[in-house]
Amino acid sequence: LTNTLNVGLVSDALVQYMVRQNPDIGIGSSTVNVVVGETNDGYLNDLQGRHVRAEHVWAAIEASSAGLVAEGSVGAGTGTSCFGWKGGIGTASRVLPEKAGGFTLGALVQTNFGHPEELQVCGVRVGRQIRPPAPPSQARGDGSIMIVLATDAPLSARQLRRLCVRAAAGLARTGSLYGHGSGDFVIAFSTAHTLAHKPAALLATRTVVADEARAMAWLLPAVVESVEEAILNSLFRAETVIGRDGHRRVGLPVEEVVALVRMHDPAMSNE
Amino acid sequence: LTNTLNVGLVSDALVQYMVRQNPDIGIGSSTVNVVVGETNDGYLNDLQGRHVRAEHVWAAIEASSAGLVAEGSVGAGTGTSCFGWKGGIGTASRVLPEKAGGFTLGALVQTNFGHPEELQVCGVRVGRQIRPPAPPSQARGDGSIMIVLATDAPLSARQLRRLCVRAAAGLARTGSLYGHGSGDFVIAFSTAHTLAHKPAALLATRTVVADEARAMAWLLPAVVESVEEAILNSLFRAETVIGRDGHRRVGLPVEEVVALVRMHDPAMSNE
Amino acid sequence: LTNTLNVGLVSDALVQYMVRQNPDIGIGSSTVNVVVGETNDGYLNDLQGRHVRAEHVWAAIEASSAGLVAEGSVGAGTGTSCFGWKGGIGTASRVLPEKAGGFTLGALVQTNFGHPEELQVCGVRVGRQIRPPAPPSQARGDGSIMIVLATDAPLSARQLRRLCVRAAAGLARTGSLYGHGSGDFVIAFSTAHTLAHKPAALLATRTVVADEARAMAWLLPAVVESVEEAILNSLFRAETVIGRDGHRRVGLPVEEVVALVRMHDPAMSNE
Amino acid sequence: LTNTLNVGLVSDALVQYMVRQNPDIGIGSSTVNVVVGETNDGYLNDLQGRHVRAEHVWAAIEASSAGLVAEGSVGAGTGTSCFGWKGGIGTASRVLPEKAGGFTLGALVQTNFGHPEELQVCGVRVGRQIRPPAPPSQARGDGSIMIVLATDAPLSARQLRRLCVRAAAGLARTGSLYGHGSGDFVIAFSTAHTLAHKPAALLATRTVVADEARAMAWLLPAVVESVEEAILNSLFRAETVIGRDGHRRVGLPVEEVVALVRMHDPAMSNE
Repeated sequence: LTNTLNVGLVSDALVQYMVRQNPDIGIGSSTVNVVVGETNDGYLNDLQGRHVRAEHVWAAIEASSAGLVAEGSVGAGTGTSCFGWKGGIGTASRVLPEKAGGFTLGALVQTNFGHPEELQVCGVRVGRQIRPPAPPSQARGDGSIMIVLATDAPLSARQLRRLCVRAAAGLARTGSLYGHGSGDFVIAFSTAHTLAHKPAALLATRTVVADEARAMAWLLPAVVESVEEAILNSLFRAETVIGRDGHRRVGLPVEEVVALVRMHDPAMSNE
Repeated sequence: LTNTLNVGLVSDALVQYMVRQNPDIGIGSSTVNVVVGETNDGYLNDLQGRHVRAEHVWAAIEASSAGLVAEGSVGAGTGTSCFGWKGGIGTASRVLPEKAGGFTLGALVQTNFGHPEELQVCGVRVGRQIRPPAPPSQARGDGSIMIVLATDAPLSARQLRRLCVRAAAGLARTGSLYGHGSGDFVIAFSTAHTLAHKPAALLATRTVVADEARAMAWLLPAVVESVEEAILNSLFRAETVIGRDGHRRVGLPVEEVVALVRMHDPAMSNE
Repeated sequence: LTNTLNVGLVSDALVQYMVRQNPDIGIGSSTVNVVVGETNDGYLNDLQGRHVRAEHVWAAIEASSAGLVAEGSVGAGTGTSCFGWKGGIGTASRVLPEKAGGFTLGALVQTNFGHPEELQVCGVRVGRQIRPPAPPSQARGDGSIMIVLATDAPLSARQLRRLCVRAAAGLARTGSLYGHGSGDFVIAFSTAHTLAHKPAALLATRTVVADEARAMAWLLPAVVESVEEAILNSLFRAETVIGRDGHRRVGLPVEEVVALVRMHDPAMSNE
Repeated sequence: LTNTLNVGLVSDALVQYMVRQNPDIGIGSSTVNVVVGETNDGYLNDLQGRHVRAEHVWAAIEASSAGLVAEGSVGAGTGTSCFGWKGGIGTASRVLPEKAGGFTLGALVQTNFGHPEELQVCGVRVGRQIRPPAPPSQARGDGSIMIVLATDAPLSARQLRRLCVRAAAGLARTGSLYGHGSGDFVIAFSTAHTLAHKPAALLATRTVVADEARAMAWLLPAVVESVEEAILNSLFRAETVIGRDGHRRVGLPVEEVVALVRMHDPAMSNE
């Protein structure tokens, strides 16, 4: 994930990294096609500078680890804006009950979309009452969101695609209209099976989800909830950022928002 | 729009109707492919009876008129269920301001989806507090929704498709997760141009939407709002129906729901 | 497979048949959505008569058997035209070698497309030299083809879709341009696994194609060859048919075509 | 168009070029998303070297001109292989008659696919008799082709997409099976209208193709023929290339191929 004008540099850095890991690429073995997601963070970021260099990409890969994921104004979320506030990276997940396989479904988002008045939190139209201090000067487009879904459920490509579709419901719950300028992408992958580059045999025996209705009855809500929560986390964890030319995105006033939500729905106090 | 097992009969009735209107079909002129949308309303409806006959289809076409659209438990919505309550047909529309062309965008829905606890009205999770009297015995699938969008804006096929995508946001706002069993379809059409079956000339001059950003800034919210409102209308206008084998779907207790929504959001009192 | 204006009646007959087989449909169990493919055979056929009735559909199902498939002017191919000649039903298949799993791939087509001058047989532009006796009076559209692929290879939905794409190469080899009026459809299915309507467990273990490159190296040519051959078979096996209003489609003069192909390519004599 | 591992560098060079042309990009105006097509030419090319640098990209843009297009082993076609022979860049076009609008349809291809035995020229299975000197050592994948279609017919996005589908028929006529490893892409664009980045008005009046049947009756064959011819041109114009590690791709022996085609089809002598 990076900014729009940095796609080329990041893509090339990934290729370099892969070739270093496997010097056989493109010589004795096949090539690689890397996947880079992008968003236009030009209000805060000096886009033309294309400041993300190969070293940053490699450092990001090397620093990746299990455990908590950094959220808010980090990485490709450093320069993004969401509903007129500071957006960023957010993540959330659900663990399914044992009767549904006990699988985990997680979402990671890069949020860079929405007009201030559209923001909804837990159904409360927060954007009608709480607005960022200054009018959004980046009214050119409507931004976009990148959504990555991961699961250890042994889903097929067809089943993973079904998860992607439901990510749109989570997005809509935050108030998004999937605006005109948006290129909202969702990709999903399963970690259940490790596929050999050169399979030993023509056929293999694999675990699959046979009772799709039962699995989806849990996976689909998990997608919707995780995406909604990940987007909110990207807002709740992002702090004010001052970027290029003094441009400023203010962090969402979390306490104010929480108070408003609780006022509308006292039951929220216990959540 | 009809029920699942009636698609064949309705399709054939439409073909008969078309042939009667234009006896040249399939002889001197080309054929017709009719479009029939369906949903499984088998909880209330004696599906196997396939009770919709050609006469009903023809009567429906002949009775069609400009003006108010019947909503609730009418037509193909007679047997449907939505969030465990009686669903049906709903409609809503928006007129764009003059600066956006003054166009109209309308939605018509046939609602037959959702679990009781999912229902959201104006962001309030009504389904958590107000439930239908009896547990839903038709828990087999998750139902589906047919959404038809119409506009007089001179949109291209590509632009109409963009409207269809946004219908999903309106659907999500009512609490739908686009459940496992759902076959949720959206079709959109424009009435701006009348296309000749046998065009007079190779080329023609047509009005198109050139400033897509400006048009979509109004059309996309119009789609989201119209679809959300149409779904709620289908619920608010449907009354209790007792169907086959004494199966019963209760109409949504509108006053109770409105009171709950107002309690959560006093501002709603003025809407 | 049937004609365009008969889709509704055939669809309804299939629903009736299914309900008779399983009276639980739509009551205790879910509903069925039947798949009907169609083509406009209105030059020979009295389309408006919609002469295919439920009894014919049921008889066709009951008469289905293993063994040789009837080809030419039979069933839904009775009224079709192909490259200006009498078209019909055709079929062909390939058996993969043991090292590729020994699987079978078969194609069945309903041919109703093409202009006389486009016909190619084994690469020879037969249509440039051999033409049907009378100019085609049904020059309104360009017709269409339905292609059904079946295999016992344990392919996933994604892999089956890849087969469908390659069917287009087989079609092109006969000279088709996928003309303007064409609605050329391909569906593919695998008989490898029997999927339970109500699965016993959430997960299952299934045989899958792990070495997709090796399998596809054989399956893709099998698709291309089978589709090309099935189309040619539909032409080679169809005899002259005189239809409504004295309309006439002449069967392809097989010996003349074979002679022409052999003249161009002596090596064909041995095939 | 470039090689697989060079996509990042080329993409970045295009962004740099665009920013230099329009310094407002990403600051006062929106961003750009560039389109780069790729193929794996690793048999001849030292892929890992990623030898295409920004300067080469800029030079290519600056050197672009009207007039004849260089074909064969040029540009992104320098390292490609096609049916085991040297492939490359090819182009071809058709001008429609006045009654079909007099429009031009052109194709440009980057050919890097196919096994030797598959090659067909004018329907003659050349690959069965004429083979490249050495067995193809790059048997890892099946390669791919990039196809670019351009026209001055005022087609909509929907209509352009229809052209793309027909490119597959032209590809199949050369013997391609759209092999397993292939990522065969087609993009099409129309030069009929110049679309303003910031339109002056909401609506505009534009010339469109109203009689789609008539236009497509000419455009679709033009696509099929142009793509077939462009692929053959890429082969006929490419000369032997010796690449990395002494790898060698021999140019198609044109006279031998032509003689074989004429032998099969004497009528070809006049074409």
